[in-house]
Amino acid sequence: MAANLASAGPGPFDPVAPNEIQLASSILSAAIPGVPLRYKRVSLHEPVKRDVIPYIEAQRLGQQLPAPPERVLQILFHRKDTGAFCKALLKVRSRQLIYVKELPKNVQAPIDGDELAEMERVCLGHPVVKAEIEKMELPLGVTVCCDPWMYGTDSLDEHRRLFQCYLYVVEINDPLNNHYSTPCTFSPVFDSASHELVRMDFLPTGIDGRVKPTSKWKPVRTVQYAHHLLDQPLRSDLKPYIVQQPEGPSYSIEGNVIRWQKWRFVVGFNDREGLVIYNITYDGRNVFYRLSVSEMTVPYGDPRRPYHRKQAFDIGDVGFGASANELALGCDCLGHISYFDAYRVDPEGSPVKMSNVVCVHEQDAGLQHKHTNWRDGSTATVVRNRQLVVQMICTLANYEYIFAYMFDQAAGIELEVRATGILSTTPFENEDAANGTVPWATNVGPGVSAPFHQHMFSFRVDPAVDGFENTVFFEESVSLPPGEENPYGAGYVTEDTVIQKSSAVDTSVDRHRVFKIRNDSVLNPITHKPVAYKLNAAPSQMLIMGKDSFNVKRAQYATKPIWVTKYQEDELFAAGEFTNQSKGEDGIQNWVARGDDVEKADLVLWHSKSNANLLNDGPVS
Amino acid sequence: MAANLASAGPGPFDPVAPNEIQLASSILSAAIPGVPLRYKRVSLHEPVKRDVIPYIEAQRLGQQLPAPPERVLQILFHRKDTGAFCKALLKVRSRQLIYVKELPKNVQAPIDGDELAEMERVCLGHPVVKAEIEKMELPLGVTVCCDPWMYGTDSLDEHRRLFQCYLYVVEINDPLNNHYSTPCTFSPVFDSASHELVRMDFLPTGIDGRVKPTSKWKPVRTVQYAHHLLDQPLRSDLKPYIVQQPEGPSYSIEGNVIRWQKWRFVVGFNDREGLVIYNITYDGRNVFYRLSVSEMTVPYGDPRRPYHRKQAFDIGDVGFGASANELALGCDCLGHISYFDAYRVDPEGSPVKMSNVVCVHEQDAGLQHKHTNWRDGSTATVVRNRQLVVQMICTLANYEYIFAYMFDQAAGIELEVRATGILSTTPFENEDAANGTVPWATNVGPGVSAPFHQHMFSFRVDPAVDGFENTVFFEESVSLPPGEENPYGAGYVTEDTVIQKSSAVDTSVDRHRVFKIRNDSVLNPITHKPVAYKLNAAPSQMLIMGKDSFNVKRAQYATKPIWVTKYQEDELFAAGEFTNQSKGEDGIQNWVARGDDVEKADLVLWHSKSNANLLNDGPVS
Repeated sequence: MAANLASAGPGPFDPVAPNEIQLASSILSAAIPGVPLRYKRVSLHEPVKRDVIPYIEAQRLGQQLPAPPERVLQILFHRKDTGAFCKALLKVRSRQLIYVKELPKNVQAPIDGDELAEMERVCLGHPVVKAEIEKMELPLGVTVCCDPWMYGTDSLDEHRRLFQCYLYVVEINDPLNNHYSTPCTFSPVFDSASHELVRMDFLPTGIDGRVKPTSKWKPVRTVQYAHHLLDQPLRSDLKPYIVQQPEGPSYSIEGNVIRWQKWRFVVGFNDREGLVIYNITYDGRNVFYRLSVSEMTVPYGDPRRPYHRKQAFDIGDVGFGASANELALGCDCLGHISYFDAYRVDPEGSPVKMSNVVCVHEQDAGLQHKHTNWRDGSTATVVRNRQLVVQMICTLANYEYIFAYMFDQAAGIELEVRATGILSTTPFENEDAANGTVPWATNVGPGVSAPFHQHMFSFRVDPAVDGFENTVFFEESVSLPPGEENPYGAGYVTEDTVIQKSSAVDTSVDRHRVFKIRNDSVLNPITHKPVAYKLNAAPSQMLIMGKDSFNVKRAQYATKPIWVTKYQEDELFAAGEFTNQSKGEDGIQNWVARGDDVEKADLVLWHSKSNANLLNDGPVS
Repeated sequence: MAANLASAGPGPFDPVAPNEIQLASSILSAAIPGVPLRYKRVSLHEPVKRDVIPYIEAQRLGQQLPAPPERVLQILFHRKDTGAFCKALLKVRSRQLIYVKELPKNVQAPIDGDELAEMERVCLGHPVVKAEIEKMELPLGVTVCCDPWMYGTDSLDEHRRLFQCYLYVVEINDPLNNHYSTPCTFSPVFDSASHELVRMDFLPTGIDGRVKPTSKWKPVRTVQYAHHLLDQPLRSDLKPYIVQQPEGPSYSIEGNVIRWQKWRFVVGFNDREGLVIYNITYDGRNVFYRLSVSEMTVPYGDPRRPYHRKQAFDIGDVGFGASANELALGCDCLGHISYFDAYRVDPEGSPVKMSNVVCVHEQDAGLQHKHTNWRDGSTATVVRNRQLVVQMICTLANYEYIFAYMFDQAAGIELEVRATGILSTTPFENEDAANGTVPWATNVGPGVSAPFHQHMFSFRVDPAVDGFENTVFFEESVSLPPGEENPYGAGYVTEDTVIQKSSAVDTSVDRHRVFKIRNDSVLNPITHKPVAYKLNAAPSQMLIMGKDSFNVKRAQYATKPIWVTKYQEDELFAAGEFTNQSKGEDGIQNWVARGDDVEKADLVLWHSKSNANLLNDGPVS
């Protein structure tokens, strides 16, 4: 099988290869002769599911492989002559463009790192910005940097490609200086297509929306995080903790296929979602067709201009793939670690290697099972909980997100998401305690506060529980009514409700509502019930913002915790295909509205979850 | 400080010492001459808080230590002449009995291992039981064992000390044979005081409450868990995973005091709660006075006789301390491990050593912090998340519970509870799929099913956030109303509600209600808000049973997730002091009913939580 995979070139789910990127840009440049192109993305266009199933089923069953469906690439680019944002699909083997089309002018391309760097350069070099910075009369050696932010939306009529440039004082010339500690009080808006300064915004600095002219910077000590910039010595009392796997890891990797214990799956990767897991089987049985984090939006709760537009869609606007950390060996994990590389396109159309963007390792997660016969306490059966971790870490300006799919030895999969990094900050004149606080933020240092915000994730589960036609239902635990069957009131049972039509569904703590994906045609021989996977969905608060706000209109997926849609090609992203400056027209709300039959069907389960991480008081400090 | 502790003998929170047990039984036997006594418990009686605070504050501040309050022991025992259940308090240093009293006849003593072993012996030796077993015509070598269960309650008038004896076929003469796979269909009830057979109950075997006479056993293959009893070979493809700490651990232990990083606390242990953490300070600041799991009840959802009474209070009825595993070196944890022993009293009044009932080790819990400046992706700041784990594992018949207090490097404490072991089972004639299932249970093997049940924990938090007078409040995240202050609908703020009077409070997912313990007299100099600790309470379903059922009356604490009471001596256990066959008279519902002022007060926060582990379909199987 491995030989087949290798000899046949990339498998149907493998990420875009460097020669494919080269091919895409050469074919496209030839197809649009004389027009310089600015490339944004070249990535795998998902294979059509019904075309790829015969291939992956033959793999699973060890049968003669049919030809895999032809790989298709998606190319996003700007024409430099008109500025138009375009999308093309290209068949790789036949080198045939399926289409090249200009997208509507209300659609903004995703942002990439080259554009951010250029935007920072343009902003800091602009005479109006330079004049404003001069008013701060910064001491020698103290400079200013710029985090260009996705502009967000507060108007249906705005079609320019805009960036809100948040500026910060850089007290120390060191890449790890924490500029988020010292935000400036002015924030220019630029058009990234024309490089024009659209407007200079001034940021509120007090308890209301009032702004002040830029004045001389009052030096405050930057609150640092980097170890070599800290005042206090580091803690020195942690002794080394070493994980050794002298016989190597228990997994094997061939191409992008990982095998570990009874698992087999394909590690996918694209600019947008980053890590995607495809074609997951356990003990030779189908489990999931595709798992990914489909979107994450981070709206901020500060109601004042320009913060009312501060809402990142970190997957759609930028991309977890595009911002994935290149993980250095031994840096972020313990034990034996393996890595996957990926490739992205540069603005000119050449492939750029991203080294070590996904890492794989095993971990020990405590006790899996223990039992002792109480009659004989000396004899115990113990099994430890070994897990396989497939991980990606993404840096999006101030924040780092750590995504880890953890496969266990009992057919369970957990997706752990951690947020770290630094808070996104705003200037606040709080040096004097009498200045108090604003009710939508927490003071985090001298002259700086951090507004409340939500991280709203959408976890997309494309199931294949013992086959590609499944049913989602929820199960609730309810008291049996008093009566002959329940004379003492002790009885309770479960009640199942099948999701028959595509829809959005609430969670329920009081009824312990649990969502499951089952295959009605395969019975568990012990329980006599259909085999099923449970989604351990922890109920969380949905979007807090007003329902008429653009924040909510653009992220309808984050208003309900559970969505079930019928599988359709090209419906991968909960907030729609293009989120940058989106107006709220695209997304999952449209797909459920079709009212498709989703019982015993090829369905997709989407779980929206808040990280519930509102910045408030931490532990005692 | 350490020398002081050592020279002064046991500290005020240290568990009962063997010489104290010896002292207690010798003084008590002398005080009740000529009457043989049956000892149940000798344990530390909690020091009076106001008496011990000057001592622990002097310790914390490095001042001259006052005399610690005199240690007091609590002794529970039966008089063998009258059978009366008695309680005594004894001052250790002055060897003075504070009182000896007979408890009311509706109070049942907790159960201990010696009693369980005796009950099994009595049951299996009883001629009526033996005759019933003979009807099964078991093959040679196949025997029967007995798990005596706490009887529970279905009448206010029952004052005998009863056990419901659940019997199981033992197919293989091996201590690790899984008898829970093969339950018998009859269940005698015994009086443990008189050893009389009270009644032979017959268990329903089908889909309703009907019972059948005992018939010849239809041999089925036992579903085993022990490795050497499994049919299939064990998985052999996991490579070794070794944790090494070549320089030893980063913690230090002196007596029962642990120091690690900025933490200092006392490891306590008693028969009932097992592991208790006392007098927790961080960086020299008070944090918590006492943390413990105060109760856990496990009611079962099968409505039929006699299962309607099946409701363990594993802490009050038996005790996590009394059932704590003696952890063998290297068996259950990785890395460098330290252990604490404890002592219990045997029925005759002598101390019995329980070796290694608490273990301490460090673990690596992934990334604590990472940040990269996106302008320079090659330089990252990374800190791993080292934790200190203080752990206890308890075996209660079929179940194992793993309790781990995890202290981190950022002043956080997590209590992780894992349940493992085996399900508690009932006979069910499901060999033929046509027999279906009952709606309150899951078929788990041939002839055996496992009824739904809840594990309702009560986590008791006695806070000392920068002092012993604290305030509990909840904070909710709510949208700002539309209007001048919030023109775009993006704004949201937090709303605080102080718990002013002792009461029970609900959680709220929709408002992201978060509970915090603060000290109103100490402001965080950065946030200008009172310092506080947050309780990360995951909302969960409360007791499902009917509110008039004894199951609920006996466990009122499990009807609300959050309780706040004013601190009172002797209010340690959420379901009351004596839970075995309790009628529901004692417990936290009475303490909140006092309506005490709990703002800026010496208060206790109690968190009730379901494990939400209803047995249903697992993963695909």
